[in-house]
Amino acid sequence: MQSYPSYLLENAVNQLSKLPGIGKKSALRLALHLLKQEQQDVADFAQAILLLKNEVKYCNVCKNISDTEVCQICSDTSRQTDVVCVVETIKEVMLIENTGQYRGLYHVLGGVISPIDGVHPSDLEIESLVQRVKQGGVKEVVLALSTTMEGDTTSYYIARKLAGCEVTLTTIARGVSVGDELQYADELTLGKSIVNRVPYKN
Amino acid sequence: MQSYPSYLLENAVNQLSKLPGIGKKSALRLALHLLKQEQQDVADFAQAILLLKNEVKYCNVCKNISDTEVCQICSDTSRQTDVVCVVETIKEVMLIENTGQYRGLYHVLGGVISPIDGVHPSDLEIESLVQRVKQGGVKEVVLALSTTMEGDTTSYYIARKLAGCEVTLTTIARGVSVGDELQYADELTLGKSIVNRVPYKN
Repeated sequence: MQSYPSYLLENAVNQLSKLPGIGKKSALRLALHLLKQEQQDVADFAQAILLLKNEVKYCNVCKNISDTEVCQICSDTSRQTDVVCVVETIKEVMLIENTGQYRGLYHVLGGVISPIDGVHPSDLEIESLVQRVKQGGVKEVVLALSTTMEGDTTSYYIARKLAGCEVTLTTIARGVSVGDELQYADELTLGKSIVNRVPYKN
Repeated sequence: MQSYPSYLLENAVNQLSKLPGIGKKSALRLALHLLKQEQQDVADFAQAILLLKNEVKYCNVCKNISDTEVCQICSDTSRQTDVVCVVETIKEVMLIENTGQYRGLYHVLGGVISPIDGVHPSDLEIESLVQRVKQGGVKEVVLALSTTMEGDTTSYYIARKLAGCEVTLTTIARGVSVGDELQYADELTLGKSIVNRVPYKN
């Protein structure tokens, strides 16, 4: 049982230790670090967090976080508007954007179906995806969810929901990582790589 | 180069990544975590940090952080007021307090003398320590600084400053850790253990 010389310190440590991956010891280190900073810097720090929570918007179209009603990606006219990539969170949007290989749009579900965690289809942005497809203009929906039971269930659920729509469903390729040696790949991945082989290009 | 879907997110990530040991990736994880919390919880989080920085006081006597003008330790009449343990930061106060083995008071220097880092004696609470001793009532000053060059320099500087005062100077014992095997102790530590041997008690 740690005893703190100040209630304010104890409170700050308790709050900081609520962050994922931050224990009480790290939280104390962070609190003492903040205490050493200039008052204005700490104010900016707190303000940035408050603004993030209170002012950030979610794009009307793709549900990605955004500073505007419609996000930068959805309002970018140079992008391919007939391809929509379905992802779990905005983290995957950022990861795919960073590859620089995708020019279509996104749809952020906000998670995957997981009854055990209390996440049901109605908690996710699935209905808005179906509506978006039904409004027309979308030719391809790329399912880019995790290959976990929950991810697969969600992909299957979305596929069923979109069954009547004239849209091509695709999923991202699974295979041996670029640069990986075959002997270290797991069987399932290597199997997918063989089955979904692509034409060889020089 | 990471591109963020929102300036507010980017700003929060930049602020969070200023914390020690938090890189851009961890900062993004923390920001997305905060975004998922309730508005009130995030407000409490930011408030705790602001209060820590803006409202925390430093004890008039020992310079430890405190919620009051004189800290809990200095105002605790059951403590031994004639022994003062000199430490670098409030962290060491907490560590020593947690041992439950010390009943005297403290004096927090705020660091150690390190000209290379621009820390000079005048930047530390050395003068206030000397004044405190000169006011009388202190019989023993325990130097509990790091055994680094900077720590040793600081101990030496304080010893010189207190040379004229009628006060016993002591330093915490260095030796083989409790539970450690002798063969794994370094020579310097084992040497100190031998030289500063104490009477054997059953």
